[in-house]
Amino acid sequence: MIDAVKAYIAAQRLIEPGDKVIAAVSGGPDSMALLHILRDLSQESGFNIVAAHINHKLRPQAEQEQQFVEESCRYLQIACYSKTIDVRELARQNKTSLEDAGRQARYAFFNELLQQLQADAIATAHHQDDQAETVLLHLLRGTGIQGLRGIMPRNRDLIRPLLQQSKQNLLAYLQENQISFCLDQSNQDQTFLRNRIRHQLIPLLQNDYNPQITENLSRLAEIVRAENEFLQQIMLNYWTQLVCSQDEQGLEMDLEGFKALPLAARRRLTIMALSAVGGPAGWEARDVEKVLDLLPKPGSAKILQLKKGIMINKSYDRIIFTSNWQKADVFNIEVTIPGEVVLPDGSRYRFMLTDCNHINTDAGDVYLDYDKLSLPLVLRSRHQGDVIQPVGFAGHKKLKKYFNEQRIPFRERDRVAVLASQSGEIYALPGLCVCSPAAVDQQSQHILLIKRAADENNGYNLKSR
Amino acid sequence: MIDAVKAYIAAQRLIEPGDKVIAAVSGGPDSMALLHILRDLSQESGFNIVAAHINHKLRPQAEQEQQFVEESCRYLQIACYSKTIDVRELARQNKTSLEDAGRQARYAFFNELLQQLQADAIATAHHQDDQAETVLLHLLRGTGIQGLRGIMPRNRDLIRPLLQQSKQNLLAYLQENQISFCLDQSNQDQTFLRNRIRHQLIPLLQNDYNPQITENLSRLAEIVRAENEFLQQIMLNYWTQLVCSQDEQGLEMDLEGFKALPLAARRRLTIMALSAVGGPAGWEARDVEKVLDLLPKPGSAKILQLKKGIMINKSYDRIIFTSNWQKADVFNIEVTIPGEVVLPDGSRYRFMLTDCNHINTDAGDVYLDYDKLSLPLVLRSRHQGDVIQPVGFAGHKKLKKYFNEQRIPFRERDRVAVLASQSGEIYALPGLCVCSPAAVDQQSQHILLIKRAADENNGYNLKSR
Repeated sequence: MIDAVKAYIAAQRLIEPGDKVIAAVSGGPDSMALLHILRDLSQESGFNIVAAHINHKLRPQAEQEQQFVEESCRYLQIACYSKTIDVRELARQNKTSLEDAGRQARYAFFNELLQQLQADAIATAHHQDDQAETVLLHLLRGTGIQGLRGIMPRNRDLIRPLLQQSKQNLLAYLQENQISFCLDQSNQDQTFLRNRIRHQLIPLLQNDYNPQITENLSRLAEIVRAENEFLQQIMLNYWTQLVCSQDEQGLEMDLEGFKALPLAARRRLTIMALSAVGGPAGWEARDVEKVLDLLPKPGSAKILQLKKGIMINKSYDRIIFTSNWQKADVFNIEVTIPGEVVLPDGSRYRFMLTDCNHINTDAGDVYLDYDKLSLPLVLRSRHQGDVIQPVGFAGHKKLKKYFNEQRIPFRERDRVAVLASQSGEIYALPGLCVCSPAAVDQQSQHILLIKRAADENNGYNLKSR
Repeated sequence: MIDAVKAYIAAQRLIEPGDKVIAAVSGGPDSMALLHILRDLSQESGFNIVAAHINHKLRPQAEQEQQFVEESCRYLQIACYSKTIDVRELARQNKTSLEDAGRQARYAFFNELLQQLQADAIATAHHQDDQAETVLLHLLRGTGIQGLRGIMPRNRDLIRPLLQQSKQNLLAYLQENQISFCLDQSNQDQTFLRNRIRHQLIPLLQNDYNPQITENLSRLAEIVRAENEFLQQIMLNYWTQLVCSQDEQGLEMDLEGFKALPLAARRRLTIMALSAVGGPAGWEARDVEKVLDLLPKPGSAKILQLKKGIMINKSYDRIIFTSNWQKADVFNIEVTIPGEVVLPDGSRYRFMLTDCNHINTDAGDVYLDYDKLSLPLVLRSRHQGDVIQPVGFAGHKKLKKYFNEQRIPFRERDRVAVLASQSGEIYALPGLCVCSPAAVDQQSQHILLIKRAADENNGYNLKSR
């Protein structure tokens, strides 16, 4: 038993020599086995161990349990950190279930201890039977690959050294070593469904279908865990190759590259994109299928709306995932000099004349050679076929190509202000670039200064990217 | 319904326009739905359909069912091929279960029809409920990723166009379209365990845990199918990179490259190697773990024995999987000229003197310059530290390096005959190469001819590789 746990800890790299590990101990059989096994291994493998106990004040026995854990630790010469939390009161305050309140309190305390003790990990006593229950729970609720992994041997700071030990083995270990424990009342912490799985479904499956069901589900979880990890490594490469731009509001992916991938890779990339834009939790197979269904359809007008306010659209050669879709209003405003233009997104442009002595290139303002401009000017959104000559580039360039090179997200391109003559010659994209026909040079005498200020509430400040 | 099946056929590429499809029709509700749906789609999508029915003669209704199927096909103007097989008699002859005998007879008939009609595929009526049962069945018996795929939409010539339709939907379709069918007696074809899953476990899970369990398991199977396919594509690359040599008796894999892979990839490569050497069926997670456990251990003496007579060994920088492990006997036999040497593996070498006029380089015989040899010669197995100078190579070369370059499998290296002087100078590896010190040249006068004949029953003929 000890050897098996030791091998598992090594294989999964749960604890390194010199680590400080906090064992979460309720006083029940599982966690008492954990405490003793880790104590034995800590001497052998050279890591340190302390115990942490939470008194939830939910049951009359809670005080006794706390005392029992503290005394056990004294006997084992392990430092024990206890905390009393009125979970019922906490649940009332936060308007959540006892279960949620308890879990939150528990992990808050654990994190506090991690910081305070400069510890490396918190070990919990989850075992093979918990694992089998979790796999069944996910399977019954409906899951893809991720859910079948069940409980992970490591999840950030949390480690589960007993995950491949059966409850039966743990009980035998306790008996052999004459280790006492509190009566197992942990079922009360469990959800109703998990309780039914533990007390009805698993015994039924064991008796009527396969006595090895627990081991089988646990082995499946481990296989799936490793496969998933392998796939995620592979997917990170695709992610790097295919995500063309990403910011807080969304991301864009190369459509052709995406389409060329195998179905499973497309599904995983979609989940990754939805998670990156809308947070990791709650995405389901049906969301993924909706995204995949969008792609083969011709045209780019349709915007797919998913939960959490996420929108997906196909635009030219990109798939766009965004949490802040604003179909930009087209604008075309004649500029008076001096004067001010306010665009639909709230950004403001002030136009004024100055001379060469007042050019301050650090301010982010735009300076153009006024004498080179063909008046009147318009500040407008892009037109199809727009061509520009940005200073420093040789020759003409399609505006679309320039946007691609500058990685301007598609969803922002209609909001970029284009300063042009009535006949269509483009002088500047204020905030992005000045174009050669309007550039200030040694001969310039009269200067047009454009000052830009984004509306804080609404405007998208291109400079902030 | 029809549209969903059509979309599924397209997405999974089950049927192309112009294909000829054989529908397997028992006359029960599932297969009657299949027949009618495929008939409708065949007109729309431009493929051809015929029906096949087997009369198992197991039940009194068998004759009526055959007539019913034949009449239905006549009415639908679909050609119907029936065959009567006495499954009970077949099972008795072959000493198998009725179920196995029935399946064998069925697929034999289908294959016969495929050939005869030059058809492209056989469609069976497996549906979502069958899929959910299959996934549960594998889950209960213990499975990795492969088993969770359940029934595949395509397995070589077999296609399952209804795999994502529920039984309930199929029944509703039959009723709406007033399609009659025989009473469903297919349960009798099912195994006991599957029957219990269908009639006890799934209803229990639906009622007490999740009414959507069938859809969920079916969706899981589809996700796992695609993930598995993706992973197999990736694994084929690793396979090509890492398998150094492969023949009928075994294969060798690069040890360092193997060790560097993620756990899931190592597991999959191991399964692939075991399947390549011992046939695909029957490998379990525990076999894989045994192989993986072998690798970190130092030394190469241990031979791991698995079922099907497969042996695995680590040798230098290789992992060797073989079905024909014979620890070669070491040999060291003095050569008389003329004379014959028989090696432990049964291969024979005849030594005789000849002259330059009788050299026939095409025959695969070995010719050496007799006057350059230091007598007496020995024919022996390799020694550690052996160095050779093969004709055409510059300078000396370790025998081990030569074997690596020539991709001689490790398990065969002790069986390679080395012709050398008593003092250790190597003149030839008859059948592989002649060495410079013994090479025939313009000045050669007396020639030693070595004729090699492998024993057919036992010898490994290096030339046949």
